Amino acid sequence: MNFLEEKILRDGVIKEGNILKVDSFLNHQIDIDVMRQTAYEFKRRFRGVEVNKVLTIEASGIAIATLLGHLYDVPVVFAKKSQTANSTDDKYISQAYSFTHKKMNNVFISKPYLSASDKVLIVDDFLADGQAAHSLIDLVHQAGAEVAGIGIAIEKGQQQGGSKLRAEGYKVESIAIIENMDWQKQTIKFRNQPELSFGNANLTIE
Amino acid sequence: MNFLEEKILRDGVIKEGNILKVDSFLNHQIDIDVMRQTAYEFKRRFRGVEVNKVLTIEASGIAIATLLGHLYDVPVVFAKKSQTANSTDDKYISQAYSFTHKKMNNVFISKPYLSASDKVLIVDDFLADGQAAHSLIDLVHQAGAEVAGIGIAIEKGQQQGGSKLRAEGYKVESIAIIENMDWQKQTIKFRNQPELSFGNANLTIE
Repeated sequence: MNFLEEKILRDGVIKEGNILKVDSFLNHQIDIDVMRQTAYEFKRRFRGVEVNKVLTIEASGIAIATLLGHLYDVPVVFAKKSQTANSTDDKYISQAYSFTHKKMNNVFISKPYLSASDKVLIVDDFLADGQAAHSLIDLVHQAGAEVAGIGIAIEKGQQQGGSKLRAEGYKVESIAIIENMDWQKQTIKFRNQPELSFGNANLTIE
Repeated sequence: MNFLEEKILRDGVIKEGNILKVDSFLNHQIDIDVMRQTAYEFKRRFRGVEVNKVLTIEASGIAIATLLGHLYDVPVVFAKKSQTANSTDDKYISQAYSFTHKKMNNVFISKPYLSASDKVLIVDDFLADGQAAHSLIDLVHQAGAEVAGIGIAIEKGQQQGGSKLRAEGYKVESIAIIENMDWQKQTIKFRNQPELSFGNANLTIE
């Protein structure tokens, strides 16, 4: 079991309707040590992959993206979800349905901040149906840039986002993949990830 | 002139209506080096001040808050702007008018993430009329916690937020204070901040 799976078992709360509440450490209050470990773990899993930009979507992906940008020493871009009054530039625009807010969002990035030479590592806190990830991939492709990979903190393995993205050929790395959870028993089963089962220490050799 | 003032002169764009556009490095694309320097500069300016939590408001304050939380090694909390479907806990709630989005927002924090023992450093990318800062202060006070200080990247000195907060007794540190700007000439005058005029190198001694 890795650091994030342990943290989820310790501090996550399962709610009815397949909801995992992790706002005590991931997306409202931020446990800075868990975030740092998440960033290091992404860097390790994407070792050898060229990355010159980290991309996420506001708001809860920004913390992970910032620490990862800090590690790579590359710019971070966060896609925005609604047009703001002081933003009149040309934009790449996509759409994503938010299950959290139960509405379609415009997701956009001002054109100067993605270019054809970018190797973009997309990161987010959650992956469920893959709506946000697909909209970010769409924006990267509109710019003629390349998706270097997709790093996810928590993937809901019962939903189809992760398997669809992998079938499309993307390198998706999720630190914790929830195979199933039971809100009445408050139990979670994680998908076994072989590359983690030997402990990180054995895997740091390039 | 400090690093942020230089960056604003180099990459900021002044728009009609007293708008300073800094989304190439601060609140859409994030220049990670500028963000790191911002976090270090806050740490320096609040030297000797006890801080056990960093608080900001979504979305563009999150990057600075995360790097500052990383430096202090304390939790970060970001206040949210609208109720989400999977959030049913008790909350501290305040209101703030967003000039950017031209509407009142509910600003809230789940109660477990602010407590009476917290010494809270509030940070944000911008301070203009102080709506967001006052709502964050209100939330801190609702929890019985203490505002350790307020760190702002860019303060619009012509608007009243900063002077009001200082008059109320808060330690407000803004890295760049815009005295005035002219969108037709594309010129900016920064307020002289004496503690920076000697260069940071002379001021690092405890």
